[in-house]
Amino acid sequence: MEVFTVEIVSVGNELLTGRVVNTNASWIADRVTRLGGVVRRVTAVGDDIRECSAAIREVLDRRPRLIVLTGGLGPTFDDRTLESLSIAIGVPLVVDVEALRMVEEKYGGDVTAPRFKMARLPRGGKPLYNPVGTAPGCLIEVDDTIIVALPGVPSEMKAMFEMHVEPLVSKLAGGAYTFRIVRVRGIEESSLAPIIDEVMRRCRAVYVKSHPKRDVELYIDVEVSCRASSLGEAEKNVYEACSLLKELVLKAGAQAEDL
Amino acid sequence: MEVFTVEIVSVGNELLTGRVVNTNASWIADRVTRLGGVVRRVTAVGDDIRECSAAIREVLDRRPRLIVLTGGLGPTFDDRTLESLSIAIGVPLVVDVEALRMVEEKYGGDVTAPRFKMARLPRGGKPLYNPVGTAPGCLIEVDDTIIVALPGVPSEMKAMFEMHVEPLVSKLAGGAYTFRIVRVRGIEESSLAPIIDEVMRRCRAVYVKSHPKRDVELYIDVEVSCRASSLGEAEKNVYEACSLLKELVLKAGAQAEDL
Repeated sequence: MEVFTVEIVSVGNELLTGRVVNTNASWIADRVTRLGGVVRRVTAVGDDIRECSAAIREVLDRRPRLIVLTGGLGPTFDDRTLESLSIAIGVPLVVDVEALRMVEEKYGGDVTAPRFKMARLPRGGKPLYNPVGTAPGCLIEVDDTIIVALPGVPSEMKAMFEMHVEPLVSKLAGGAYTFRIVRVRGIEESSLAPIIDEVMRRCRAVYVKSHPKRDVELYIDVEVSCRASSLGEAEKNVYEACSLLKELVLKAGAQAEDL
Repeated sequence: MEVFTVEIVSVGNELLTGRVVNTNASWIADRVTRLGGVVRRVTAVGDDIRECSAAIREVLDRRPRLIVLTGGLGPTFDDRTLESLSIAIGVPLVVDVEALRMVEEKYGGDVTAPRFKMARLPRGGKPLYNPVGTAPGCLIEVDDTIIVALPGVPSEMKAMFEMHVEPLVSKLAGGAYTFRIVRVRGIEESSLAPIIDEVMRRCRAVYVKSHPKRDVELYIDVEVSCRASSLGEAEKNVYEACSLLKELVLKAGAQAEDL
């Protein structure tokens, strides 16, 4: 099964000052994963053409099948994502007739300079309709990579992802993913490590990861996940691995429960 | 004023599947920013030695003054951050006597193989005491870059950042940063854009960024920030820019209030 690889690039100074938590990236990562794609990397950069175009260039060099850019599509001076994208892929930024029509429609024909800015796309790009806000998104293909630029406002990003990106990932990824969490108590992570090794050795299709947590006492959430060609197969693999995990944990004198 | 540049690398598959939101990165970014440092980029990669070491290598090539790595220091097979770091900087992973002592102390001398793993650091690295959990962190210098590896469990990461990293940033960054937010209603972002341009033209020291938001109606939070050599100077610059911003917004027939 060929892996549908995805990288996410989030643009915005507010992500680098810590004023905003990058929930856009985790939302997109969750959607992509559930659709059977694999997110390889998330990069957050500031509103700076040099930094942003360099980051996009580096991501392109790793040749993911899809790059999702978010943020920096609006009308203000610091919205520079499409300009950065143009530089990264070496094409000029040009006024797109269809994008201009979308912007005109939003403002009843009153297209001032800052609004006009939103109708400029990298040449060859296809504007993506924004059902919530005003700035159109953009889709462009470079070699085998599809690049999609979406706004940073979460409500706009989500609506546009569902409208334009989800069908595309769903069609191209063609896989399924599922996971379960087993909560384990009464055992140290370092003592659980050999048990996890055994589960992964005996259940080859799954991936097991432990997440130590603390409330009053220490406990460990063990995430058992699987990517397979069908959801039924993925679920079966995860179920079998969880059963083995719980059996081994109980044998070691600790407690395990499904979450 | 020389800029103290920082990059954050967050390691963990859970960040790429969207199961966990990267709040560690925003917490660190907030701390670094308040101490006068500048975060240039945040990268999230999975628990994969090749991906992780490649990412660290690329960050090093950009020569930030500080790299903060989080995640992947524990005892399980998928905790590979220090191994990835070793590969990235081209030194072997060796058992560190002081780190071993820290681990021994945590387990009362009962050091099994998975626990022993936590005492291995890249050669030349200094172990960092973990006051909350069991895995020591690591600090190592490569040319002009300081690299710090901290655990991914937020309570451990925060305690160790405050204990080991904050004094260092505070000493080396030697600057101050502040921001204020002005909430603007009754004006479109595209109409606010020329006003923001004017504020930035007349108040050179500040950076102004608009964040369009939606509740029942659209409003815009305008963030006015400044980095300066003293907090007093930064606050004065931000205050003056906010006053000008509010004046111009009112003149345009819209509303503005301090948040």
